[in-house]
Amino acid sequence: MTTLVFGHKSPDTDSTGSPILWAWYLNEVDGTDAEPVLLGEPNTEAAFMLERWSLPKPRIIADVEPGQPCVIVDTNNPAELPGAINEADIQGIIDHHKLVGGLETKGPIDITVRPLACTATIMVDLMGEHAAKMPDAMKGAALTCILSDTLEFRSPTTTAHDRAVAERLAADLGVDIASYAAEMFAAKSDVSAFSDAELLRMDSKEYEVAGTKFRVSVLETTAPATVLDRKDSLMQSMQDVAAEDGVDQVLLFVVDILNEEATLLVPNDLVKTLAEKSFGATVAGDHVVLPGVMSRKKQIIPNLAL
Amino acid sequence: MTTLVFGHKSPDTDSTGSPILWAWYLNEVDGTDAEPVLLGEPNTEAAFMLERWSLPKPRIIADVEPGQPCVIVDTNNPAELPGAINEADIQGIIDHHKLVGGLETKGPIDITVRPLACTATIMVDLMGEHAAKMPDAMKGAALTCILSDTLEFRSPTTTAHDRAVAERLAADLGVDIASYAAEMFAAKSDVSAFSDAELLRMDSKEYEVAGTKFRVSVLETTAPATVLDRKDSLMQSMQDVAAEDGVDQVLLFVVDILNEEATLLVPNDLVKTLAEKSFGATVAGDHVVLPGVMSRKKQIIPNLAL
Repeated sequence: MTTLVFGHKSPDTDSTGSPILWAWYLNEVDGTDAEPVLLGEPNTEAAFMLERWSLPKPRIIADVEPGQPCVIVDTNNPAELPGAINEADIQGIIDHHKLVGGLETKGPIDITVRPLACTATIMVDLMGEHAAKMPDAMKGAALTCILSDTLEFRSPTTTAHDRAVAERLAADLGVDIASYAAEMFAAKSDVSAFSDAELLRMDSKEYEVAGTKFRVSVLETTAPATVLDRKDSLMQSMQDVAAEDGVDQVLLFVVDILNEEATLLVPNDLVKTLAEKSFGATVAGDHVVLPGVMSRKKQIIPNLAL
Repeated sequence: MTTLVFGHKSPDTDSTGSPILWAWYLNEVDGTDAEPVLLGEPNTEAAFMLERWSLPKPRIIADVEPGQPCVIVDTNNPAELPGAINEADIQGIIDHHKLVGGLETKGPIDITVRPLACTATIMVDLMGEHAAKMPDAMKGAALTCILSDTLEFRSPTTTAHDRAVAERLAADLGVDIASYAAEMFAAKSDVSAFSDAELLRMDSKEYEVAGTKFRVSVLETTAPATVLDRKDSLMQSMQDVAAEDGVDQVLLFVVDILNEEATLLVPNDLVKTLAEKSFGATVAGDHVVLPGVMSRKKQIIPNLAL
């Protein structure tokens, strides 16, 4: 039975590229029949990566069958995985997020979690000497994942090791990192095709603060104005999205990659209080700029307070 | 703040030796101030290891303070760890058991789980080139852990890699594996000092089958007669231990290391039915021999049925 390799729902670049990378390794090096799949439509940056490196778009699956062999990458959170995940035959987990608990396996399996910026970095390490054998398309996917997760080494999640791996891949490929990253971020910033609700759910994690449930959404962009121009209708849409998804409030952080700051939309007093208590911000009006804030994992989630 | 490294409660050889090994690595190679500690008295084989390699017995702790930096080895099960484990600052997990869920971390950390027989084998791999620098006492501890968990390569959990690592350590140390393992197993088999209740809890995991809660206890020995001579009082004691520990029934498998078989005590019809359904055994009397059964992880737990 073919082993399915997948990341989280609402796949971003790492959750699209890392399954492709690891399925390559399983097929070509490990001798395990494997297929990368997606749990939803890839975002525009991930779609750019597939096209740039001529990678076929992986099949999208809705759930897994009981006993389905699978490798989970870029998450260990059952809420971000297929509903039947604990009935599947989980054979491995490769991730760089905090352990949230909830996943169970039938026997001992391979689990590798590292505090690095990107799953692809961990995979290159796990491949060891075989990493050099990756075809250009795989090296390109790995490079794209690392530049995406580190926001071209700007995010505070970036480690020296992520950077070293990316620079080696870029050198092998003859890719200029600055201009390539600019192309990636332009693709990610083109959100014109998405509805407000789609934007609010595109890169989002649920998180509870003092009994209040938030959907913490981030949009990383080099063109924040194109999102902020839509802020009235985005704030309107927050109420419907919150109601549909069973949370109390949607938070939208528009991360300006080039200026290294985030703008938080402030639709009501709840978010105003949260902005003040979490980030020491002084809020006047319907949005607030948070200088230096780029990472949900390192800077937003750990600071959220009410 | 010193990082504490510990394994599971009721420490066996791997849960005593692996914390010592990893604390050595953290102190000497990684530059992290670390101390191995125990969550209870080590068993007789673990005590033999400490004495044989002149290793000081680690301090025994009852619980961890909130925020205490720690590395968990040889388990990922909160039930086998200090009560306040999820308030601690878990910095790493190195294990070879199935994922049971329940542990949570504050941020992304280093987690390495591998389907190998022994935690010490994984640690030698993680040390890479530094493993060769281990002093003899550390190599001796690693060798003892692997021989213990594999029952000198007899257990079906043994992988070729565990064996290769142990054989390299033994060669480095000039230790003859057969005679050293015989000493280890003689130490483990000397259970004269323990009460029946202590024997029933010494190497034990809780497991539920069809709504019935079992404490699945294993005693690995080269002298099964010394345990089986006590079977009447052991069966008597099972009722008290079950009541105190909130389970329905204690199962005791006496594993004969040299003859590669287990004897299951059969105090009542519940255990008789379980023995028949789980192992296809024909039970007449108060015990039953299960040929070839040596591993709780691979042969007992996966087959338990009612």
